[in-house]
Amino acid sequence: MSSEPPLTYKDAGVDIAAQDEALTRARSAIRASFTPGVLGDVGSFGGLFDLAKVGCQDAILVASADGVGTKLDVAKRAGIFDTVGRDLVQHCINDILVQGAQPLFFLDYVGTGRVEARIVSDLIRGCAEACRDNGLALLGGETAEMPGLYDEGDFDLVGTIVGAVARDKVLDGSRVRPGQVLLGMPSTGLHTNGYSLARKVLFERLALEIDDRPDELEGRTVGEALLAPHRSYKEALWPLLEEGRIAALAHITGGGLRDNVPRVIGGCDAVIDRASWAVPGLFRMICEAGGIERDEAYRVFNMGIGMVLVIDPEEESAVRAHLASVGEEIVSIGSVAAGAPEAGKGVVRWA
Amino acid sequence: MSSEPPLTYKDAGVDIAAQDEALTRARSAIRASFTPGVLGDVGSFGGLFDLAKVGCQDAILVASADGVGTKLDVAKRAGIFDTVGRDLVQHCINDILVQGAQPLFFLDYVGTGRVEARIVSDLIRGCAEACRDNGLALLGGETAEMPGLYDEGDFDLVGTIVGAVARDKVLDGSRVRPGQVLLGMPSTGLHTNGYSLARKVLFERLALEIDDRPDELEGRTVGEALLAPHRSYKEALWPLLEEGRIAALAHITGGGLRDNVPRVIGGCDAVIDRASWAVPGLFRMICEAGGIERDEAYRVFNMGIGMVLVIDPEEESAVRAHLASVGEEIVSIGSVAAGAPEAGKGVVRWA
Repeated sequence: MSSEPPLTYKDAGVDIAAQDEALTRARSAIRASFTPGVLGDVGSFGGLFDLAKVGCQDAILVASADGVGTKLDVAKRAGIFDTVGRDLVQHCINDILVQGAQPLFFLDYVGTGRVEARIVSDLIRGCAEACRDNGLALLGGETAEMPGLYDEGDFDLVGTIVGAVARDKVLDGSRVRPGQVLLGMPSTGLHTNGYSLARKVLFERLALEIDDRPDELEGRTVGEALLAPHRSYKEALWPLLEEGRIAALAHITGGGLRDNVPRVIGGCDAVIDRASWAVPGLFRMICEAGGIERDEAYRVFNMGIGMVLVIDPEEESAVRAHLASVGEEIVSIGSVAAGAPEAGKGVVRWA
Repeated sequence: MSSEPPLTYKDAGVDIAAQDEALTRARSAIRASFTPGVLGDVGSFGGLFDLAKVGCQDAILVASADGVGTKLDVAKRAGIFDTVGRDLVQHCINDILVQGAQPLFFLDYVGTGRVEARIVSDLIRGCAEACRDNGLALLGGETAEMPGLYDEGDFDLVGTIVGAVARDKVLDGSRVRPGQVLLGMPSTGLHTNGYSLARKVLFERLALEIDDRPDELEGRTVGEALLAPHRSYKEALWPLLEEGRIAALAHITGGGLRDNVPRVIGGCDAVIDRASWAVPGLFRMICEAGGIERDEAYRVFNMGIGMVLVIDPEEESAVRAHLASVGEEIVSIGSVAAGAPEAGKGVVRWA
């Protein structure tokens, strides 16, 4: 026998009581997200979901996984942990919305060096509240305490979404034709992309602090501007998707307009005029201070456009009327053109 | 304009080319996992899955998210990165198998400080190969490069699984009765639980190296014993689930026999005799060198039992015959007893 003292799991840095406390704190928010599809309660091995109860038993499932990226570092600097949960859920919603899917449920994962119940429960609660607001269920999740793998105050937040789309309503690029118009919907900020470059410019090159209020941000602090939640386009776009008025949708995430629009328009090209909308001050400040080249900026950041709609010209007035009626300001940013057949895939051409 | 040189995303530590290379390397393994349910190819915003093509359109979905824990640290010490992908997939399979579900698809997430294409592609390939071997599709995933949030060589690996179970075959504890027998199926090692404590004992207290061959491991190195993949019980158990011969299943993960068996047996108690199986050398070595108390050990580690079957006594001979026919060695570890009604939930009683 060893003469050294007996070891426990807690001695090794894994505090199951803290994990339980985090879940207990978040449980009511999780339950509040439950929809009629959810069977059972929090804490089973797997979450059960009945497609028939939400009328989706003959639908195609659409699934996507994502993280929040280094927006997490900004949250840590600001000490605000619930907004990144919302970022994650709403990013995932938009990712499947562009294939025509209604979000059904979401699962979260928190990895951390040491579980602080308040932080972990805020992360989960942020996910749960965003699920509730968007009509999907937080069906399950995992919190993993991994001493040594993450530094003590560090964590990652990961999510997976599952949605459903009727088989005749899948958006797969097949409805895209030259002559269709491109409408842009504004982003609320960087959303969840480009934070490593933004942090380098703002916190290193400009040496700004999280509470500074540079003129370009028009009264907001750096933290407020950077933590503005990645918005969900579901509520505004769902009626249009149900009516079949949209030929394609592109969620402008990592890769920007340049890489994301071609993913959804078959072999066509997109002709986009970057002068057609005003780039918000946050992006201008980052690009100027970082000396970031224009093409690089439009590949790293959304530059103010978070979602692009591809629609037939004859649908434009109905689409604009609906979006105006729900308070959305949209902008025509370009049109669809025939792609070069020899290219094999479409590209963005800057007008 | 700034007089400093222009910044790019790569300057900020995000190398999209390396991410693309990792995905390119893993792509053929991902495609090889595709089942008839998968629509489309690698690289859409969301993965599409058609339940009707696999005969599951009226089934209940079962979903679960998990990570690999600090087994990742062992992989890093050994420089072996594909087995942890298998660990993750097979852990997730077992988690939904215990509710009676057939695994349908899986999504992975790799978060890292700096993308090394070889390591990331090995992680994803390991997931993809385990998916293929178990008949589910690697439907999607995300690789996130997060300089500053992870140290350069560090990474986390997270997965979400979705499966389906016929409505009348959900295992939810309602078929469990006093007098049923508990059969244990062997684990292949620690699976994916207790690594923080195991690493503390083996690498700190005993100061072992990854290539050492202590007597207790009967010829294997520390790395080989610790990286033995978390096994999948699907192939062995699926025929029994289809025939309805199993009243409940418990996957012995974090919390050990003590916490996991009560999760699946309604309000009944489980009477388990810890003398009924031989605890493998790896567990004995860790517990002895760490001076780990017996109850703590059976809460942190699986102690040699990776899955527990709850079955009616009249099914025992058929179940044993099937499992013997597929080369499984099983052991009777106890029985189900009436729980104390005032307790509200069942417990494990050690015989």
